[in-house]
Parts: sequence; C-alpha cells; structure tokens
Amino acid sequence: MKILGIDPGSHITGYGVIEKKKDQWIPLTYGCLRTNSNSPLSNRLLEIYQGLSSIIAESKPNVLSIENVFFSKNANSALKLGHSRGVLILAAIQAGLSLYEYTPLQIKQAVTSYGQASKEQVQAMIMKLLRLKEKPPLDASDALAVALCHAHTNTNLQGMRASA
Amino acid sequence: MKILGIDPGSHITGYGVIEKKKDQWIPLTYGCLRTNSNSPLSNRLLEIYQGLSSIIAESKPNVLSIENVFFSKNANSALKLGHSRGVLILAAIQAGLSLYEYTPLQIKQAVTSYGQASKEQVQAMIMKLLRLKEKPPLDASDALAVALCHAHTNTNLQGMRASA
Repeated sequence: MKILGIDPGSHITGYGVIEKKKDQWIPLTYGCLRTNSNSPLSNRLLEIYQGLSSIIAESKPNVLSIENVFFSKNANSALKLGHSRGVLILAAIQAGLSLYEYTPLQIKQAVTSYGQASKEQVQAMIMKLLRLKEKPPLDASDALAVALCHAHTNTNLQGMRASA
Repeated sequence: MKILGIDPGSHITGYGVIEKKKDQWIPLTYGCLRTNSNSPLSNRLLEIYQGLSSIIAESKPNVLSIENVFFSKNANSALKLGHSRGVLILAAIQAGLSLYEYTPLQIKQAVTSYGQASKEQVQAMIMKLLRLKEKPPLDASDALAVALCHAHTNTNLQGMRASA
C-alpha cells in the first residue's frame, strides 16, 4: 500500500508519499506545491489541482490521508484553505484514492506520542521514522506525518481485526 | 456573451446561465445542484464538480460570475463552503471561463437597487428582469442575480470605455 499525506495550505501545500517495504515505511516522494500569491484565485486552484494530479499519476498512491482542520476563528482563512482542500480532495478522488481524515492531535500523537509537538519536533521524528538523511521542508514533514498517521492507525485497525 | 452565475453552498449550489438576445438578457438554464449531506465529503465534491462541468458543457458560457463571500464568524462553515467553491471555480477555469467575483452588496444593488434586499425580493426582481413566468428556487434566483450583476457591471464598464 502507498499512502499520500497532504498538509494543505492556501499558498503552500506539503505532500509526501510513503510505501511499506518489509517492515519499514519508506518515502517515495515528498515536497511542497507553491503558488504565487499574486496570481488570481482560479489560476492558483488550477495549479494546485494539476500539481497534485501529476504527483498522483507518478507515484500511484492508494490512499489520501489529510488533516481534518477545525477553526475557532478567522473565517476568511478557513474559506481560502477550503478552496485548496476542495481541489486537492477532488484530484485524489478522481484518481480513485480513498480518503481518510485525521485531527492534528491524532497526527502528532501518531508520530511523536505527544499531541502538542511542535513542527520541528514532528520534523525530527519523521527523519528518524523514515530514515531521512536530510531535513524535509516543514510543510513536507507535516505531510509525511499525516501519511504515517494513517499507516499506524491502519496497522492498528488490522491488528485489532486480526485479534478480534 | 453567455454568463454563468453561481450561488455556492456546501450542500445546495444554485446556478443560472443567461444570454443577451437583442437588448434583453434571457435565461438559458437555471436550477440547483444538491448533494446528499450523508455522503462522504469526497463524493459530494466529485458530484458538485461533475454537475457543474455538465452544465458548462451543455450551455457553453464564457464567464463565471460568483459571489465573493466574507465571513465574520463560523469558520467551519467557511471551510465547508470553501471546499465547494474551490471545485466549482476549478470546473469553470478548466472549461476556459473567465472568473469575476462580486460582493453580496454589489449583487443586490445591481438587481434591486437596494443592498439589503431579501432573497424573496431578489427572486421577484429576477422574475421581472428575465421575464420568468414561474418562481425559480431561491438558490437559483440568487445565482441568476450574480450572473445579471456581471451583465450590468460589464455593460457599464463597456459604456465607460466607449465614452472615455
């Protein structure tokens, strides 16, 4: 199974695809999709959609794991994030991926065992878990964390089913 | 020129396409795209995207006119609306439409000359302006209002250019 993790943003979207080889999850590709904040909204959405569609076509993941965000304030930021999130999910579902959503707490606990971990702590743990030699950009390490969160949760669910 | 107006929502999206024949704008098609609120987010986004893509393929508009929303609170509603808005704009830009955004005030003033008009007042004015014999659904009349707002604004801009 290959898992695509995404950390969506209105201007920078982190992505990472991981695959299990024997007992070890390895990163196939990761990075950031960046759009020009001066470009019109429609162009930016098309760029994000086409960018993710290309990544999916190349790395062929089975699952999209994405952060389930909750906002308590700043509704205009939420609307902008919603635009990006909408076209990212669309690109994945059109390519036949299944969608899983996890809260920030679940993601941080899954990779650091600590729900309040900083982005830098997540990055350090991702480097260790995926045996990366170089620091990934913070948005990419967040995306890899979402992918690993699904990998661990899914493994646990299979373990639970097997032992039921 | 044909103008597609959209009133986006997380569950119901109103749409309407208008075209100018001689000096009169006439509606080519209008209605609502509805999604099942019990369906997963990914399915709903795919339905909205495919629904609007079909309408565009059939009615071949040149322009998308869409409400530019501002939220002061309820960020989670804004995020949900953003998802829908993102895939609707994507469908339009992929089909080569130009995108124009108008505030609720601009839209209401353009069709009723009154920025605080109710949905029912907009509906009544839309029936008069487009010579409709039957009441359109409220979401569809809002969408037709967004389309007419662009029609009027665009005419004014052309008038200004011509007289400049």
